[in-house]
Amino acid sequence: MGTTPHLRLDVAILDRNIEAMAGLCGAAHLSLRPHAKTHKSPEIARRQLSAGAVGLTVATIGEAEVFAPACDDLFIAYPLWVDAADADRLRALAERSRILVGCDSVEAARRLSRLPVEVVVEVDSGHHRSGVQPARAGELAARISELGLRVRGVFTFPGHSYSPDARAAAADDEAAALAVATSTLAAALVPARLVSGGSTPSAAFSRAGVLNELRPGVYVFGDAQQVELGTIGFDQVALTVVATVVSHAGGRAITDAGSKALGADRSAWATGYGRVLELPDARIVALSEHHSTIEWPGGLPALGSLVALVPNHVCNAVNLADSYHLTDGGTWPVSARGRNN
Amino acid sequence: MGTTPHLRLDVAILDRNIEAMAGLCGAAHLSLRPHAKTHKSPEIARRQLSAGAVGLTVATIGEAEVFAPACDDLFIAYPLWVDAADADRLRALAERSRILVGCDSVEAARRLSRLPVEVVVEVDSGHHRSGVQPARAGELAARISELGLRVRGVFTFPGHSYSPDARAAAADDEAAALAVATSTLAAALVPARLVSGGSTPSAAFSRAGVLNELRPGVYVFGDAQQVELGTIGFDQVALTVVATVVSHAGGRAITDAGSKALGADRSAWATGYGRVLELPDARIVALSEHHSTIEWPGGLPALGSLVALVPNHVCNAVNLADSYHLTDGGTWPVSARGRNN
Repeated sequence: MGTTPHLRLDVAILDRNIEAMAGLCGAAHLSLRPHAKTHKSPEIARRQLSAGAVGLTVATIGEAEVFAPACDDLFIAYPLWVDAADADRLRALAERSRILVGCDSVEAARRLSRLPVEVVVEVDSGHHRSGVQPARAGELAARISELGLRVRGVFTFPGHSYSPDARAAAADDEAAALAVATSTLAAALVPARLVSGGSTPSAAFSRAGVLNELRPGVYVFGDAQQVELGTIGFDQVALTVVATVVSHAGGRAITDAGSKALGADRSAWATGYGRVLELPDARIVALSEHHSTIEWPGGLPALGSLVALVPNHVCNAVNLADSYHLTDGGTWPVSARGRNN
Repeated sequence: MGTTPHLRLDVAILDRNIEAMAGLCGAAHLSLRPHAKTHKSPEIARRQLSAGAVGLTVATIGEAEVFAPACDDLFIAYPLWVDAADADRLRALAERSRILVGCDSVEAARRLSRLPVEVVVEVDSGHHRSGVQPARAGELAARISELGLRVRGVFTFPGHSYSPDARAAAADDEAAALAVATSTLAAALVPARLVSGGSTPSAAFSRAGVLNELRPGVYVFGDAQQVELGTIGFDQVALTVVATVVSHAGGRAITDAGSKALGADRSAWATGYGRVLELPDARIVALSEHHSTIEWPGGLPALGSLVALVPNHVCNAVNLADSYHLTDGGTWPVSARGRNN
């Protein structure tokens, strides 16, 4: 199993999760373009593509470079600000793959204007991060088109689905925002062929009549946030961090998986810094770089025991590791680990 | 400067920070054994050793393996639970360096008992993580000695210094705990030659009459937590994450440095997810993997501007990067990046 802490991946659950999301999208007549930032693994991307994904979503040019050999249709769903070096990298990528790039300003579009990429206008559907207001999407799309760029459509990330009881409402907001954006594009005579949304918590509530593509990422593995949001059960968690119990100080189980293995993510609504796979009543009450402090109902696990911890946010936990240890033996590399620019 | 986000290191400030802590320890007649988990860089470790550090502290066997070529006196200040593979690694390390290992249980000590290492008993001084209660240290030291292991002394990490107005009080707790522990070792006829404590926030308040060694880590770089705790000013921050402003959505500055560059750390008392070096009134109000959302008083920085962000917890930010970009040109590798087991 290797020295702890390390990532443990149950490929049977992974495959079930991949099939389930493919089935959900298929039944809803939505294209699925999974976000590869979650797993950073071409091996997993190939499984998603084999199950019917139309392409991949990535967050950075670096990730696109890792996934281009496995996929000829990549959407960098991020408002890139492209410098000369980035432009060269995008040109090289476009020689083998179709490259879509997110955009929410004319200024950023200008820097894309001589590149062989298509642009997707980002709109804000309530997460209030990047993206223009939906009513402004058509105006921006028209100006981008005037630069000689091809506008493929519109996209949003309904990230406010990451809140208790907000999953369905965020999907409603997503549909409303994308409907407005699409109509403003039509009014500007820039048809939106791509209408893309999606997050793992909101996926089941997506409005296929408005959207034609989903970009969820976390669903492949699941994590403690998804369990606590009610998106999945523990039996759908494919990835855990295996840790060793190193101390019983203070009557608690102290393990060697800290923030450098689990990530430090903790939403205001989270019950702790992650969960214990086999013991839903346990709580990770404190986290240092190399320690998790776990209140463990019933008898403490023996010193030296291996325990499987579920990170709050699996994308950040994966980005801290160099490889997956498969439950049935072997390893896969986290090929795009650190390719975050 | 390289594509953003990336780590920017000001070597002049780094050197001043190294000298200042060496001076503080020298004046107090305390040995300095800096924690190398902060920087994971043999280049920086050599500077610390040249400035008078007696050795290095590390958190894992993997870090010890990276630093052994630079240092022949390494303290793995962690309650290791050693398996057969770990034992082989410790034996190999001990061929070139003196190896000290933390311990807070007889069970863990048994697994060290045939290895060429010295043991340091960990005590809890108020952080309530690992470590025995100070009054129990002598009893544990005696039992460890009976296993044939050499007990070098006692150590603690006063991590509760990471709280507003707690820096001096945590140093008091540290001294009280180590004084009790030292006396119980003496009573058990296991003299404590090493009495080790220290954290960056509490370092200036350390009681040299009780301690003889400090193990601070963060002081080399500084970070937003240290600024907000009052340990340092912004002019002592040597390391920042350089980010590009990619969006003005919502009237805020959105940059490309998110939790995969800054780390997701946020203490309850922090004012945000990090700080802006040149603008103390700015606040990072939201963080995603590839976005930081910054409320920026006055006019927003232009799209495409580079801004220097100060991570809340620099140790986790460094562990996310493969290299340091030096302000005067060149790069240093983060050699122990990911060596967290």
